[in-house]
Amino acid sequence: MASLQDIATSAYINLLSVLMFLLGFAFLRLQPINDRVYFPKWYLKGIRESPNKSGTLVKKFVNLDFKTYLFFWNWMPAALRMPESELIDHAGLDSVVYIRIYLLGLKIFVPIAILSFAVLVPLNCTGKTLDDIKDLTYSDIDKLSISNIPSGSFRLSAHIIMAYVFTFWTCYILYKEYEIISDKRLEFIASENRRPDQFTVLVRNIPPESDESVSEHVEHFFSVNHPEHYLTHQVVYNANKLAKLVKELKSWQNWLSYYETRFERNPKKRPRTKTGLWGLFGRSVDAIEYHKTEIEKIIQEEIDEREKVISDPKSIVPAAFVSFKSRWGAAVCAQTQQSRNPTLWLTEWAPEPCDVYWDNLAMPYVQLTVKQLIIAVTMFFLTFFFMIPIAFVQSLASIEGIQKVLVFLRPLIRMKRVKSVVQGFLPGIALKMFTASLPTILVQMSKMEGHTCHSALDRRTAGKYHLFVLVNVFLGSIITGAAFDQLYAFLNEAPSSIPKTVGVAIPMKATFFITYIMVDGWAGIAAEIIRVVPLIKFHFKNTFFVKTKQDKEEAMDPGSLSFATTEPRIQLYFLLGLVYSVATPIILPFILVFFAFSYTVYRHQIINVYDQNYESGGRFWPDVHRRIIISLIISQVLLMGLLSTKNAAKSTPLLLVLALFTIWFHIFCKGRFESAFVKFPLQEAMKKDTTERAKEPKLDLKAYLRDAYVHPALKGAEIERPAAVDEEEKNPLVSTKRRTSKSSSGSFGAEDAIEELLSYL
Amino acid sequence: MASLQDIATSAYINLLSVLMFLLGFAFLRLQPINDRVYFPKWYLKGIRESPNKSGTLVKKFVNLDFKTYLFFWNWMPAALRMPESELIDHAGLDSVVYIRIYLLGLKIFVPIAILSFAVLVPLNCTGKTLDDIKDLTYSDIDKLSISNIPSGSFRLSAHIIMAYVFTFWTCYILYKEYEIISDKRLEFIASENRRPDQFTVLVRNIPPESDESVSEHVEHFFSVNHPEHYLTHQVVYNANKLAKLVKELKSWQNWLSYYETRFERNPKKRPRTKTGLWGLFGRSVDAIEYHKTEIEKIIQEEIDEREKVISDPKSIVPAAFVSFKSRWGAAVCAQTQQSRNPTLWLTEWAPEPCDVYWDNLAMPYVQLTVKQLIIAVTMFFLTFFFMIPIAFVQSLASIEGIQKVLVFLRPLIRMKRVKSVVQGFLPGIALKMFTASLPTILVQMSKMEGHTCHSALDRRTAGKYHLFVLVNVFLGSIITGAAFDQLYAFLNEAPSSIPKTVGVAIPMKATFFITYIMVDGWAGIAAEIIRVVPLIKFHFKNTFFVKTKQDKEEAMDPGSLSFATTEPRIQLYFLLGLVYSVATPIILPFILVFFAFSYTVYRHQIINVYDQNYESGGRFWPDVHRRIIISLIISQVLLMGLLSTKNAAKSTPLLLVLALFTIWFHIFCKGRFESAFVKFPLQEAMKKDTTERAKEPKLDLKAYLRDAYVHPALKGAEIERPAAVDEEEKNPLVSTKRRTSKSSSGSFGAEDAIEELLSYL
Repeated sequence: MASLQDIATSAYINLLSVLMFLLGFAFLRLQPINDRVYFPKWYLKGIRESPNKSGTLVKKFVNLDFKTYLFFWNWMPAALRMPESELIDHAGLDSVVYIRIYLLGLKIFVPIAILSFAVLVPLNCTGKTLDDIKDLTYSDIDKLSISNIPSGSFRLSAHIIMAYVFTFWTCYILYKEYEIISDKRLEFIASENRRPDQFTVLVRNIPPESDESVSEHVEHFFSVNHPEHYLTHQVVYNANKLAKLVKELKSWQNWLSYYETRFERNPKKRPRTKTGLWGLFGRSVDAIEYHKTEIEKIIQEEIDEREKVISDPKSIVPAAFVSFKSRWGAAVCAQTQQSRNPTLWLTEWAPEPCDVYWDNLAMPYVQLTVKQLIIAVTMFFLTFFFMIPIAFVQSLASIEGIQKVLVFLRPLIRMKRVKSVVQGFLPGIALKMFTASLPTILVQMSKMEGHTCHSALDRRTAGKYHLFVLVNVFLGSIITGAAFDQLYAFLNEAPSSIPKTVGVAIPMKATFFITYIMVDGWAGIAAEIIRVVPLIKFHFKNTFFVKTKQDKEEAMDPGSLSFATTEPRIQLYFLLGLVYSVATPIILPFILVFFAFSYTVYRHQIINVYDQNYESGGRFWPDVHRRIIISLIISQVLLMGLLSTKNAAKSTPLLLVLALFTIWFHIFCKGRFESAFVKFPLQEAMKKDTTERAKEPKLDLKAYLRDAYVHPALKGAEIERPAAVDEEEKNPLVSTKRRTSKSSSGSFGAEDAIEELLSYL
Repeated sequence: MASLQDIATSAYINLLSVLMFLLGFAFLRLQPINDRVYFPKWYLKGIRESPNKSGTLVKKFVNLDFKTYLFFWNWMPAALRMPESELIDHAGLDSVVYIRIYLLGLKIFVPIAILSFAVLVPLNCTGKTLDDIKDLTYSDIDKLSISNIPSGSFRLSAHIIMAYVFTFWTCYILYKEYEIISDKRLEFIASENRRPDQFTVLVRNIPPESDESVSEHVEHFFSVNHPEHYLTHQVVYNANKLAKLVKELKSWQNWLSYYETRFERNPKKRPRTKTGLWGLFGRSVDAIEYHKTEIEKIIQEEIDEREKVISDPKSIVPAAFVSFKSRWGAAVCAQTQQSRNPTLWLTEWAPEPCDVYWDNLAMPYVQLTVKQLIIAVTMFFLTFFFMIPIAFVQSLASIEGIQKVLVFLRPLIRMKRVKSVVQGFLPGIALKMFTASLPTILVQMSKMEGHTCHSALDRRTAGKYHLFVLVNVFLGSIITGAAFDQLYAFLNEAPSSIPKTVGVAIPMKATFFITYIMVDGWAGIAAEIIRVVPLIKFHFKNTFFVKTKQDKEEAMDPGSLSFATTEPRIQLYFLLGLVYSVATPIILPFILVFFAFSYTVYRHQIINVYDQNYESGGRFWPDVHRRIIISLIISQVLLMGLLSTKNAAKSTPLLLVLALFTIWFHIFCKGRFESAFVKFPLQEAMKKDTTERAKEPKLDLKAYLRDAYVHPALKGAEIERPAAVDEEEKNPLVSTKRRTSKSSSGSFGAEDAIEELLSYL
């Protein structure tokens, strides 16, 4: 067990690395050459212009105004200055709700920390149990924890009272926050501009009809069953092959740029390449010419495929986007059941056009349920048997393993230095590789579950990741040993003994988690702000690929908040805070620093960097709320176990009541707020419809909606439309993705096509 | 352990009692005097007339046609003869779906029984394990069970294969049945005549508005948010006090009838009564005069109260029945969320007028969730600690207990004969009293949960009763000991050891359950058909109260299928069948007899006797389905435990896969069918609307709906209406309860009032 001294050393190291990251960030950020890496959002909004246009050559790349370096921390107050309403306009509600999670952490834990330090720490300090034990090593940290209270002491009642106070406080704050966020969401939806998804419903599992096309069938069905509200619809094409061609084209295009840039810089030597695999084998040819012909070939192929997709009725999947004359009509259709068979004509709110996950639109009901079953089973095994393949790979990655498999490396490995590197690093790298690949695996699993929009995919992935963090990081750290060992133990132990086993280990692991918080929470967040990977990527692209201004725009990769992986990590801090608030309150200040620092950093990032791919209007909040409730219940159960080993088993009913209250509170909140995140109340729809009708009585909604839900790979092509009137020239194209709105679809030359196609990637 | 001989004896006794009941029924049924007890449904339908109108005096009361006695079983083929479609018309879908549960039992267990006897019984018979054990007593039954298979024998794989076959067969039949019943339900709904609830939505939690009455507020809200569909609405009055007065009046009226009858029979002596408590104390008065004045007083009181309810705005609760111009409009409103706050303006399909449970309409959201929490906790304690109060009362009911409490009885109790009676019967009676009062307790608990219709109350009560049967009857019989002992043991045992403990006990309890099936399932059902209580009640009422023809109608108490208590009992047989199908198949024929016999009996009862209070269209089927799935999973888990004690623990994963499949099957069915029982598809609504509009273009729907949802105690009074046009004379009253349809509301004399009021009770 680590002493206060060890913790201080660790804190010192971590604070130093944080400071280094921040200084590095401050320095890099001020160089004009990096401006597009650290402020891409402003470029995307068209507000910021490259600073390296005027001035001397040096000034273009390096900031020589040394005064600015002195105030290296000034991005922090700047990040905190923007008011929330403005921030919603600037970055969208999703981002704002996301950073409010950190704020929620502060709101919950600041009063809890103060109370703990005022009440529990003095009580624990003067417990004197550990002073009497001579044969056990204990640290100063333990003296401040519940371990220092004698068994069966009356002082433990203070801990129970505090558990009550903390639970009620957390619930109060959670309730308030749920209320605020659901209000914000409804306000946001009410104040939003007209958007295609407000009028549109996604219909899936359209039953096949022998004598009608899908399009006709949809039109007939909705004209009959929503006669006063149905407006138009768009069928969904299976354009997966086309999308693949577009991607291929993009790659060729990139290489062409690369060779052209090379040629420009060194006009004497035309670059050459080989036609075989990876440009390494085959005939040697002129690279620029070769790429140009290949690109033309692919463009032709793409045009043919596009023709095929549009003309072949088989490429129409049994799903459609049906639009209504009013938001009221769409709200009604999205919330009701259409046909006798509840697995046919499934309706749901259409996602934003750029949020649609096109690949999953055609999945039938039986396939969906089977896939969900498979995923659930896989998830169970992935969570509990995650360590098995890692242990296997780690054993392979050991000296003996490598010697066996790769015989020819044997002489190399026998060298002493190589050996120590292999032994020291390979197992760690193996673990890191598995952990790093986890989000990708989870996303793939969520995709298989058949969600139709990216936001749902993210939410589901976050749920899986949370389970994983809970089992493999939290429980795995407390009870050392692989998760499947735990599972086996749990199955063969009495249910009442599990909280005891875990509860007892809680105070002992406090120092471990304090170190974890400093490494992952402090230094990790500081590393986030410096954006190493995008920085390198941007400069690499800028050097080799960028020719036009648009290329430069593309080379900027603002990225986005990856909700799926970051949110479950925040949840770990909530869990640690709640579990340790009673047992070892000394951990709380470390968590508070994490929340405050992360809040500032992410506020800066969403203002200056991230550009979200979609806007779900804080749709994920019920998940966040639920997970905090889960943490709360875990903390109560573990406290039960801890206290029952302290001869205070008679407190169990008291804590059971508390857990019951927490569950009830969750059900209450779910009923009270959740539907604001799932349904769209008719009153709101009617209000918005009425206002719009008064403001713009002559709006041509049909034209507005006509091309909103076209597969991105098909944009601009002549596709089948319910009403075959071609008014393309007359009407402005609908912007379906913020970034795309700049590209216009005019004549259909190869040049334009490439440009347009590229802009979708 | 009982031998085959013991079982045979028990079967003999039970079969004899069944025969006696059936002969008794055959005899009683044929007596004209009992005609109204055994065929009340036909009287209510107005098809059957009293047979004792013509013929000699003797013939009026006794059937002298001895030939009819010879065919005493002929009610059975008669009961089975009526085709199902006709039965739906005659008895309603609820009853038909109910008896289909028995049919489902036959469909599931006939093939399972055949397979078991063909495969498992021979395997078990030749197992020879029990022959080798000398020091254990075992019976012939055990020789036919899995106990006779040696540990770790390869023969056990046959049992696992059979578990798979039985599960797949059960799921297949369940799927088919779900499909059939959801089709039947949708057909039933589609073919139903126009009914007020098809157009009406129950709105609860209407927010208070300072400057509008509830009625105005409702009208404004729905005119704005459903402008094209809103038709009219009816506010709900809190008429609980009025209903109490009506009940009181009914009681006085009954006694008046009684005295008048007495006076008629013995005109010389006017009956007298006392004015005090229970007619035992106080001043002696002329009974008829006294009752007449009292009745008039109450009628006046009732008229005043009615005035008060109607004129006082405080008696309007924040709930209303809102009617729409079309079924489509109502379907939309019922399925969507109306306002931002999802706990306000809650909409749901209105129940049938006679299905409304008026007392619960005014419950606000917070109160509702708090009450549900309390009920959940109470239910937990009731289930697991049910035996505690019983044990306490039983200890009081012992000789010593009585001697202590009731000292004055001491000499009486000391008599030997009295002593033995007390010791033998009192504890049994105490248990019986508690068990008998259980449904009432459960109904009261369900009422507190805030359901708005009787059918939902029944369904919820059935759910609670099912839990109780599962824990206290099934588990309680297998592991002898009180449920809370089991709970304690389960909490302190490993989860994997629970199925073992229970599973091992399964084959040993087979003989007990065989006896149970014969007593409860065979003799119990035979006792059902003889209708002892209604028989006595009818003759008692007929003798003392009946004067007019209408009185006679009322004296008939057809009763109704009490779904809440009978369905969970059937579930016990499903559970026993599934659990024992692999372990001790010899139990299956007994269960088959139960299902076949019950099916015949209940078919007879719903044709000739029962008159349902409400019609929910088989709304309870998802519950039935879910509970059979639960039984299936319990049987698989117990088989796992049983096999793991037979050194076949490696079969556990195989059975886990099976359990997983079963859960998945349930989720699949839920998604596929459940919404047919919850929602009303818009396509169906539109179809019905269109047909109706074509058939009756001039229908005055507003007039039709105007008085549909008036509190029964307020029927006929002048209540506030949204549109204050009084067209009462022009329009026929809507029949809201089948039995009431006969009473007409004309002039409002005291006589009519009583008659009308009585008819609602």
